[in-house]
Amino acid sequence: MANLKLFALNGNKPLAEKVAAALKMELAPASVKHFADGEIQIDIEKSIRGADVYIIQSVSDPVNENFMELMIMVDALRRASAHLINVVIPYYGYARADRKARAREPITAKMVANMLEMDGVDRVVTVDLHADQLQGFFDIPVDHLRALPILAQYFVDQGITDNVVAVAPDHSGTKLARKFAEHLGSPLAIIDSRPGDQNIGVIGDVKGKTAVIVDDMIDTGMRIEEAVRALQEAGAEKIYTVATHAVFSAGAATRLAKLPLEKIVVTDTIELPDEKCLPNMVTISVDQLIARAIHLISENQSIHELFED
Amino acid sequence: MANLKLFALNGNKPLAEKVAAALKMELAPASVKHFADGEIQIDIEKSIRGADVYIIQSVSDPVNENFMELMIMVDALRRASAHLINVVIPYYGYARADRKARAREPITAKMVANMLEMDGVDRVVTVDLHADQLQGFFDIPVDHLRALPILAQYFVDQGITDNVVAVAPDHSGTKLARKFAEHLGSPLAIIDSRPGDQNIGVIGDVKGKTAVIVDDMIDTGMRIEEAVRALQEAGAEKIYTVATHAVFSAGAATRLAKLPLEKIVVTDTIELPDEKCLPNMVTISVDQLIARAIHLISENQSIHELFED
Amino acid sequence: MANLKLFALNGNKPLAEKVAAALKMELAPASVKHFADGEIQIDIEKSIRGADVYIIQSVSDPVNENFMELMIMVDALRRASAHLINVVIPYYGYARADRKARAREPITAKMVANMLEMDGVDRVVTVDLHADQLQGFFDIPVDHLRALPILAQYFVDQGITDNVVAVAPDHSGTKLARKFAEHLGSPLAIIDSRPGDQNIGVIGDVKGKTAVIVDDMIDTGMRIEEAVRALQEAGAEKIYTVATHAVFSAGAATRLAKLPLEKIVVTDTIELPDEKCLPNMVTISVDQLIARAIHLISENQSIHELFED
Amino acid sequence: MANLKLFALNGNKPLAEKVAAALKMELAPASVKHFADGEIQIDIEKSIRGADVYIIQSVSDPVNENFMELMIMVDALRRASAHLINVVIPYYGYARADRKARAREPITAKMVANMLEMDGVDRVVTVDLHADQLQGFFDIPVDHLRALPILAQYFVDQGITDNVVAVAPDHSGTKLARKFAEHLGSPLAIIDSRPGDQNIGVIGDVKGKTAVIVDDMIDTGMRIEEAVRALQEAGAEKIYTVATHAVFSAGAATRLAKLPLEKIVVTDTIELPDEKCLPNMVTISVDQLIARAIHLISENQSIHELFED
Amino acid sequence: MANLKLFALNGNKPLAEKVAAALKMELAPASVKHFADGEIQIDIEKSIRGADVYIIQSVSDPVNENFMELMIMVDALRRASAHLINVVIPYYGYARADRKARAREPITAKMVANMLEMDGVDRVVTVDLHADQLQGFFDIPVDHLRALPILAQYFVDQGITDNVVAVAPDHSGTKLARKFAEHLGSPLAIIDSRPGDQNIGVIGDVKGKTAVIVDDMIDTGMRIEEAVRALQEAGAEKIYTVATHAVFSAGAATRLAKLPLEKIVVTDTIELPDEKCLPNMVTISVDQLIARAIHLISENQSIHELFED
Amino acid sequence: MANLKLFALNGNKPLAEKVAAALKMELAPASVKHFADGEIQIDIEKSIRGADVYIIQSVSDPVNENFMELMIMVDALRRASAHLINVVIPYYGYARADRKARAREPITAKMVANMLEMDGVDRVVTVDLHADQLQGFFDIPVDHLRALPILAQYFVDQGITDNVVAVAPDHSGTKLARKFAEHLGSPLAIIDSRPGDQNIGVIGDVKGKTAVIVDDMIDTGMRIEEAVRALQEAGAEKIYTVATHAVFSAGAATRLAKLPLEKIVVTDTIELPDEKCLPNMVTISVDQLIARAIHLISENQSIHELFED
Repeated sequence: MANLKLFALNGNKPLAEKVAAALKMELAPASVKHFADGEIQIDIEKSIRGADVYIIQSVSDPVNENFMELMIMVDALRRASAHLINVVIPYYGYARADRKARAREPITAKMVANMLEMDGVDRVVTVDLHADQLQGFFDIPVDHLRALPILAQYFVDQGITDNVVAVAPDHSGTKLARKFAEHLGSPLAIIDSRPGDQNIGVIGDVKGKTAVIVDDMIDTGMRIEEAVRALQEAGAEKIYTVATHAVFSAGAATRLAKLPLEKIVVTDTIELPDEKCLPNMVTISVDQLIARAIHLISENQSIHELFED
Repeated sequence: MANLKLFALNGNKPLAEKVAAALKMELAPASVKHFADGEIQIDIEKSIRGADVYIIQSVSDPVNENFMELMIMVDALRRASAHLINVVIPYYGYARADRKARAREPITAKMVANMLEMDGVDRVVTVDLHADQLQGFFDIPVDHLRALPILAQYFVDQGITDNVVAVAPDHSGTKLARKFAEHLGSPLAIIDSRPGDQNIGVIGDVKGKTAVIVDDMIDTGMRIEEAVRALQEAGAEKIYTVATHAVFSAGAATRLAKLPLEKIVVTDTIELPDEKCLPNMVTISVDQLIARAIHLISENQSIHELFED
Repeated sequence: MANLKLFALNGNKPLAEKVAAALKMELAPASVKHFADGEIQIDIEKSIRGADVYIIQSVSDPVNENFMELMIMVDALRRASAHLINVVIPYYGYARADRKARAREPITAKMVANMLEMDGVDRVVTVDLHADQLQGFFDIPVDHLRALPILAQYFVDQGITDNVVAVAPDHSGTKLARKFAEHLGSPLAIIDSRPGDQNIGVIGDVKGKTAVIVDDMIDTGMRIEEAVRALQEAGAEKIYTVATHAVFSAGAATRLAKLPLEKIVVTDTIELPDEKCLPNMVTISVDQLIARAIHLISENQSIHELFED
Repeated sequence: MANLKLFALNGNKPLAEKVAAALKMELAPASVKHFADGEIQIDIEKSIRGADVYIIQSVSDPVNENFMELMIMVDALRRASAHLINVVIPYYGYARADRKARAREPITAKMVANMLEMDGVDRVVTVDLHADQLQGFFDIPVDHLRALPILAQYFVDQGITDNVVAVAPDHSGTKLARKFAEHLGSPLAIIDSRPGDQNIGVIGDVKGKTAVIVDDMIDTGMRIEEAVRALQEAGAEKIYTVATHAVFSAGAATRLAKLPLEKIVVTDTIELPDEKCLPNMVTISVDQLIARAIHLISENQSIHELFED
Repeated sequence: MANLKLFALNGNKPLAEKVAAALKMELAPASVKHFADGEIQIDIEKSIRGADVYIIQSVSDPVNENFMELMIMVDALRRASAHLINVVIPYYGYARADRKARAREPITAKMVANMLEMDGVDRVVTVDLHADQLQGFFDIPVDHLRALPILAQYFVDQGITDNVVAVAPDHSGTKLARKFAEHLGSPLAIIDSRPGDQNIGVIGDVKGKTAVIVDDMIDTGMRIEEAVRALQEAGAEKIYTVATHAVFSAGAATRLAKLPLEKIVVTDTIELPDEKCLPNMVTISVDQLIARAIHLISENQSIHELFED
Repeated sequence: MANLKLFALNGNKPLAEKVAAALKMELAPASVKHFADGEIQIDIEKSIRGADVYIIQSVSDPVNENFMELMIMVDALRRASAHLINVVIPYYGYARADRKARAREPITAKMVANMLEMDGVDRVVTVDLHADQLQGFFDIPVDHLRALPILAQYFVDQGITDNVVAVAPDHSGTKLARKFAEHLGSPLAIIDSRPGDQNIGVIGDVKGKTAVIVDDMIDTGMRIEEAVRALQEAGAEKIYTVATHAVFSAGAATRLAKLPLEKIVVTDTIELPDEKCLPNMVTISVDQLIARAIHLISENQSIHELFED
């Protein structure tokens, strides 16, 4: 890995530093400033001619700032004669804008993919995309890592496997919950919330069980709130929630703090400010996952162990 | 619609003719031959300079032949100075190859999209894509029509709405079944089949009910077979199945013929040979749906009524 | 102009409304929201199929948010079958990142151009680019409007033409100041500031004169501050400053407020909050300029009167 | 050639195996299945990250199936991070669809080239293209190998050089026959068949001579049949036919079997089923030609010896 | 044809003027200057916004100057908002560089096509391409007009049809000569010149006949000179030569002047200076052919009558 | 630098040979012929498969011929499997056509950039571009070398630093003259020539001083002539002129010969014929600058020392 350079932008520096440590490397020196007029300026301090570069950047809040940092960095690297430009996006913002549900909607997740390809990115490494089809938004290689096994492993390690039921918080999430259920050998239930209907049902049996609500991301927390209410009504005894991406947008922390959740288990794909970290939150790092992927990729070895499920 | 031309290739001529009839138009004359050596030759008999062309072609079995017919037709039209090339693909083959589930898999559904765009297609009109994200595989406009409401309407019209439960045949299909359930105001159940597990469970209550298995396509019929078995064990009283695309690949008709299904309700997005048509099959045409879409598009009017759900 | 639609995003709504008024049109209804997690959602309320669309958006602070609004809007319009997508960018952010002055710098102004072209924009209309060469960053038509003549006309109208000297605040700005000088028939002077040199010189004669500092934009105001100091030392009697784009980033208003400037003459290409508006500021609207350009373009008439100088 | 991988698809596996043997390599393991619904599924069994891949695939009958296999394989390899993707196409199907002879014809040979380039192919290696101009349909390197010298060498080795005349079966083939004639030092004749004219003439002297009909491919065999008839009438004593590509579409074998041909000399660019192999057929393998090309290319050495004529 | 504009560059102004006259139009005003330092400057005098533009330019000697004029004109028109840019190239220079005959040769004819497409050309209209396959070098529509029927008609009109033999001056030209022979109902002969062989043979019977040497272009005239010598030796009585493109490069006129040719029949696709015009030369204009093509194209009517053969 | 190949085309062979000598390399053998009909033919004599190629070509008079040589060479190299294609353009013709100053002007400098990128160029190395923004016309890396420091060093070496004033010959050139002034520690003056005004003024003090007119190129020499006149009137004592690119188009040498210039200091980016070389001309070679750039680039080292200013 002689000529490999690792850069961190502002999206998730603590994770980038942990990845670098896991790889026994230093982050390459670069400064990324946001000027008083809002423009971003990037200063790459040492030559990267001919280098295989990895940029670690979560496209999390502030999504547009972080995304533009990434685009501008890639432009700079390409013009500075980098050999290969790999972008590691632990959290891929706009992933939910992946289809046209209503008339005249954009498909921003595709636009983001187009922009990265146009900019000269050679590869994307990312974690638990909102929909697997997003891989197909790219024509360059996408190495799609899975954090779900790590999250499930936490429950196994903590012995939370008996009498557990995996719960999909809505119909779209059934497949993910099903995967989680397989890891724990548990049954499955689905929250059945319908527009215009006050009563939220639960399909499947949760009575007297330890329910684990499984989702790919926690955004406002409202879906979890509804799920918890429905699970309580349906007689669940204990409730956990697990998700890869802790988006935690406005009000989420407050909302979650009020819920009777045993644990909120998430990863560090998104850097959370201290004020959003709750006492019952468990954060499991994806640092080893990403570091291992970078190592295998740079050695031209298969990474299938990190994404097949 | 002065300068509008409608072409049919070999994928689904009967549907194309019904669409033309619904539009009160003739199909434009063209011959599509497959030579003895396997090559396709296309002969467009009249000038289409400056015309807004719609090609109706289902990419169904033989998938590759039908797809290449479409590609070659588009090449011919582009070189012959068509003004706008719209392709109407009632069944989009390879739609399930939409993500990389295992190492080194292709994403053929994206490749198909890339090929169509490269060929100069200006717009795609299609029906009930396997995943909504496939719209994002294109950067040109995709008008995604929904046949599900028409199929649900059949059940309403036939009075099959009481004591009904909509059934998703696997976890991925929950969202679609949920949509169907909303149309009928019915509850939902999910078939829970796990690798290596002989017992197929049912999540949700189906006992004594009329179960309607809802899927986007029926391919080999094996998933339906499993679902029927599970529903019977769980005490369902009557079983229907409904799907947009009747792929019916090898053995499907035989397999379905043996199942105790009240009705198999499908559309004509795929042309089925007579020997695959079962007595309990109901085929509902998408001709009006497609004709209305072509009419609205050519008049620059919104088609949101045809795809929003 | 039957099928012409005018949209405003959040970058400069007051200007967009004035342009619409000048064209005797309504802005087309659309909402642009920034979600709690930072993502942008756009909702275009009425069909724009086949329409010639003009989007008015200044890429001013917050630059990245405004730029991404524009990109996402274009994606939505393209997918919704707009016929032509024209973007009107009164202030083109990142315009100064137009070359690689130091090693490993990005050329963000080009990247922005590439992104717009990739997104399917058909035409760019903009005002007083930082460098004329930016037109060449695009391969689509760029209609480059000039506000300088309007600004110069203000001085003529106010009778500020005698004993005037146009002043370039640095060496790069000489050409612009020269143009301004031609409009007023005045001589020219240049501020000669050198790195590491406390003394800022003035080349050319300003003694006892009315000096007008001419620039394309006022950002932090520091360059103006230096110019004012140098002009005072060199004996200028009265000092004005004129610029097209009032960027006014952090501290600019405070800094300018302390300077002995007769007038600060700017346009409204950037929407300034009230607290940044100084008593001696004169804002001249580019509404008629832009409205006239849109009118001529939509009628396929030459706009050379609006950009030749 | 450490990191070189050789794959065979279904178009011509026997030739691929001979090429591998000539290179002292194993074919890399991959399975290519055609599902019951006509879709192709590809499974590449071992990692090819960073490898220089060569795929051997003839685009012969079934042309569209074989071509789509190739396209899908390339998509899979690109997404799986192959370093370089070389496609070896011993027989390039659709090569005759290389121009627009009638109104509104496609140029499918160009479309095929566009599709391969779009898919990420880095290089094409092929044998005796129908027209040399097809190289120009690509912008990537095309290594165009010549089998004609090998075929001519057969006649030299067999001592069939005295009293020989090379015969072009139509006007378009004169150049190829002329090349062949040079190899044997023989004169040239041309079959002069005219639409609507029963009599087929022969230009040049064939009386009492050994005529060798030279063509790039034998498709239906009808052109050969006519040529034989004309040569017999013109008094040729013995007749051979030689061609690179044995397309042998429907009826060709039966037709050729009836003709008084001494030998039908072809190569194995196309895999022929046993029932199409005639007793007087001589098949000369291009295995060494292709193996040598792959070796030279992978060693960055010139291959001009293999294509210049 | 309200908004149609016709431009002539310097490649063949007399032909352009005749085409304009045939269309009853004026050439649109533009000046094309070559500066003292060799750079080209183009000045389009009136607005062409929204116009359908036709540029008439032969890419004849000076080939590179004429080609760059065309490219720069297209760039100017695209940036000036032309609606459709059609380029009419009566003589397509570099057409013979259409394949890689030796190692490391460019395929300049393809590069020229790529450049025109990249520049934004919407359509190419051209006359008698050196190889039909050049149409496939483009992905935009190419309208390929045929001058051969006009040339053959000259012989019919002059009553030169009895005892005529059409002669291909080399093996590559057989197909063209064959077409010509069909028009006159004459037989065919081929000049058989071999490298390193002093004797040039004639295949076919020319003794006592009127031989018409048919070629697509006359460049140095050396091939004609050899053909004439061979035809005389073989006993031809009278000799004509006919070709679409009178390239007439250095020495051609002198060489042809010495040959015993009854007539040299060419078209005006290339503008010849007076000193290259010989007394026995007959020039037939393609003005009506091109004017008719422009008329039909602009009216969206089929032009198949002008290119099918 | 094992597999590095250096080619020279006809634009500036003497410089290419000096660069090769400085690199202790031979120029790779290739012939570039201009045929009698104006077409260019290129013959690369040895294999360059897998090589990192550098082509040295000034796009100077004859600009279009030299540019097309470069394009055709790149096409040949790409098709011949070069690994990386670097073009070294000491003088970038058409650089002044970099913006649309009047209606309907082309931006030829951008078109040239587009053509090079489309042709497959991997990197551009160039010297003192007319405007720095031209770097942004490319998306591939541009290594922009600066000759100004070398030119300034000449004045330092010759002791011409006292009482010197750097003079910009017009307003656009102020920035360049300013840079030069910094190198010598001298003040700055600007020639102020206005359309329609006979009197050419001088802004800044030149009386009794040694004036050095600084420009990026000398084309017709008319701007220098005017500057000299203005400087004489303003009392300059001695006058030098310095410029990177000695374009010297028609009449320039004669014009300059008449001017009272101490020295005309230029580089050899353009090869001047002997008759254009004046006795008071000093030519400083950029050979070491270019050789050092090629060396650093091929070794993947930073070249910032060669372009930052």
